[in-house]
Amino acid sequence: MAAPPPTSWTYARSGVDRTSVRSALAALLGAVRYRPPPSNGRAVEGPGHYAGLVRVGRETIAITTDTVGTKVLLAEQLGRWEEVGEDLVAVNVNDLAAVGARPCGLVDCLSVPSPSPPVFAALGRGIDRGLRAAGCGLLGGETAVVPDIVRGHDLGGTAIGFFPRDRRPVIGERIRPGDLLIGLASSGFHANGFTLVRRLLERTRADLDRPRPGTTIPFGQELLAPTRVYVPMSEVMAGRPETHGLAHISGGGVRNLARLNPRVAFVLDDWPRPEGIFRWAMEAGEIAPEEMYQTFNVGIGFVLVVAPTHRSEILRRLARAGAPDARVVGHVARGRGVEVPTFGLSYRGYD
Amino acid sequence: MAAPPPTSWTYARSGVDRTSVRSALAALLGAVRYRPPPSNGRAVEGPGHYAGLVRVGRETIAITTDTVGTKVLLAEQLGRWEEVGEDLVAVNVNDLAAVGARPCGLVDCLSVPSPSPPVFAALGRGIDRGLRAAGCGLLGGETAVVPDIVRGHDLGGTAIGFFPRDRRPVIGERIRPGDLLIGLASSGFHANGFTLVRRLLERTRADLDRPRPGTTIPFGQELLAPTRVYVPMSEVMAGRPETHGLAHISGGGVRNLARLNPRVAFVLDDWPRPEGIFRWAMEAGEIAPEEMYQTFNVGIGFVLVVAPTHRSEILRRLARAGAPDARVVGHVARGRGVEVPTFGLSYRGYD
Repeated sequence: MAAPPPTSWTYARSGVDRTSVRSALAALLGAVRYRPPPSNGRAVEGPGHYAGLVRVGRETIAITTDTVGTKVLLAEQLGRWEEVGEDLVAVNVNDLAAVGARPCGLVDCLSVPSPSPPVFAALGRGIDRGLRAAGCGLLGGETAVVPDIVRGHDLGGTAIGFFPRDRRPVIGERIRPGDLLIGLASSGFHANGFTLVRRLLERTRADLDRPRPGTTIPFGQELLAPTRVYVPMSEVMAGRPETHGLAHISGGGVRNLARLNPRVAFVLDDWPRPEGIFRWAMEAGEIAPEEMYQTFNVGIGFVLVVAPTHRSEILRRLARAGAPDARVVGHVARGRGVEVPTFGLSYRGYD
Repeated sequence: MAAPPPTSWTYARSGVDRTSVRSALAALLGAVRYRPPPSNGRAVEGPGHYAGLVRVGRETIAITTDTVGTKVLLAEQLGRWEEVGEDLVAVNVNDLAAVGARPCGLVDCLSVPSPSPPVFAALGRGIDRGLRAAGCGLLGGETAVVPDIVRGHDLGGTAIGFFPRDRRPVIGERIRPGDLLIGLASSGFHANGFTLVRRLLERTRADLDRPRPGTTIPFGQELLAPTRVYVPMSEVMAGRPETHGLAHISGGGVRNLARLNPRVAFVLDDWPRPEGIFRWAMEAGEIAPEEMYQTFNVGIGFVLVVAPTHRSEILRRLARAGAPDARVVGHVARGRGVEVPTFGLSYRGYD
C-alpha cells in the first residue's frame, strides 16, 4: 500500500504510539509469572481477551477494566460531564457483552485534580443512565484527589459479569467460514481516538457551539455523544447456539474482529463508508482509509458473528432488543485477519 | 482538645481536603438511583464498605478498587518501581481480606504519560510479588497513554474475591463489648498519606539516599517499603466463629475501625506510639497526635476483632500464617467511635 501523503494524520502522529505501549506491556506481563492454585480461582483460557474469565466456586466471572481516556478533555472544555459518565459504564459493560457475560456491576475509580460537586453530580447522572442501559449496579468506587498526578479527570472503571444458568462464554472458537457478521450502529466515536480527534479540532479551529452542515445539534455535543450500550443485544443472543462470536469495536477499529479467531478471515463487504462525523474526521485530517478503519469504529460499534441460518429471526430478535438498525455487514471466509474490500484494506491481526 | 500550633502540619494543609471529597462523592452517589433486578446480581448490604459484595448465581463476589496514589511520585523520584507495583496489588487485596473474602484475581488500570519498558518490567515484578503474597492471579488490565491527562503514573487496580465453601462475609455485625483487637504490624506508611509525607520531605530537605539515624537502609527505600499483604492472616481466621470483624488500616488511620460497627467503641489501649518512620513524620511536621492517628496507620496495618476466648490459640494460628508479630492492641467497649487513651484521643466515626 502506498505511503499516505505527509499532510495525512495518523493516530501515532497525534501522540499515541501503539508500538511503545506493546513493548511496555510485554515487559510487564513477562514479569508476572505467578499462577495461583486452582482453589483460589481458575483462570479460563480464551482468545477473546475482551474480559478476563475466572472460575470461582460454581460460577464463571468475567472482569474488565477501562477508562474514558482523553474524551474527558473535550467534556471539560464544554463543561458537559453526563456523557462521559455514561461512557465510563458503557466502555466496560460492552467488553463484558463481547464475551456474552451479563454485567452485574461496576466500580468506578476517579483520579481528579480537585473534586467539584456539580461535576460529580453530572458524572453520577451519566453513570446512572449507563447502569440503567446495562441493567447493573454501582458496587463501590474510589475517588483519589491527586493534583500532583493528574491535570484532567481520569475516569476509570471495572465491571464484572457472570453467565446465567447454562450460558457459556462466547469466545469465538466456533466461528467458521460462511458465518455472517451482523453489525450494530455506533453512536459516534464512542470513547476512542479522541487524542487524534482533539488535534483535528485544533487544526480546523472547529466551532463546537454550532451544528456541522446537515446536522441539528452543536458539533461539541455531537462529538460527546455517549457510547451506545450493547448489553441488551448481547443478552438476547449470547446463550444461543447460532451465536459464534461477539466483538466490541473499540480502540483498534475493525481489527477488533481479529481478536475473536485467528484462523479465519473477516470480510467486511458491507461495513459503512466513513459518513457523518467519520467523514468529517477523514477530511479534516486527510486521514487514509487504512488509518480510519484501524482507529475508529466507522459507524459500527458491535458485531455478532452468527451461523448463516435464521438470519431474519436474528434480526427480528435484535430489533426487539433495541437494535432495529442491525444488518449484515460482512461474512467470514477462509484466510486470516480483517478485510475491507471497498478500500482494498487488509489487516493481519489486532495490532 | 487545644488547637494545634500554626506550624503544625495536617493532611488537609498538604492538599487533600476530605470535606470537599465527601461533598463531591455525595453528589455523585445521590445521582445514581438505578437498582438492577435481582436476576442481574443482588447487592449484599453490609456496613463494612471495604469491598462491594454482590450475590451472583450461587456465589457471593467481593470487589474493590483503589490506586497507589501519590506514593508513585516518590517512586519516580527514586527510579524504583517494584515497591509501588507490589502496593498496587496489596492495597486492593487487603480490602478484600477485610471482608474475609479470598482474592481470586486483579486487573490493573495504568494511566501513564509515556510507556517505558524498564518501568513496566519493574512494576510487573512488584505486581508478581503482590500476587504471590495474596495467592491470586492477574486477570487482565488496561494501559492508557494519556500525557494530556496525567503527569505521573496513576496506578489503579480492582480485585475480586469470593467466599470458599460455607464461609460468610465478615462485616462486623457480631462485634460486641469485651471483644479483643488483635493488631498486625504495618510495614511503614503503606500507600497512604504520601501527599503529606512528600511535603515533609521537602520541608526537612531529607536526604533520601542515606539511612536515618538508627536504620540501615536508605531513607527513600524505607519510605517506599511495600504495603504488607494481610491475606494469609485473614484466610486462617475469616471462616472461624470467633472472628467478629476485620479492618484494613488505610487512609483515615485508626478511624477505619469505626467502619466495622457504629454501635460500639474501639479502645486502642495498646496501639503503638509513633515510632520509627512515624516518629520522624510527627517531628518533621510537628503533627499533632490526633492528626497522626487519623492519617497514618501508626504501626498497625490490619486488625482482627475476635471473641476474647481462645486468645493464645488465635495468636499461634496467626504466627503460623506469617504474623508472629500479632498482639492485642485494644478492646471493644460500650459507646461508639475510636479512642486512643494514651493521647486522650476520641474519634466519632470514619470521617
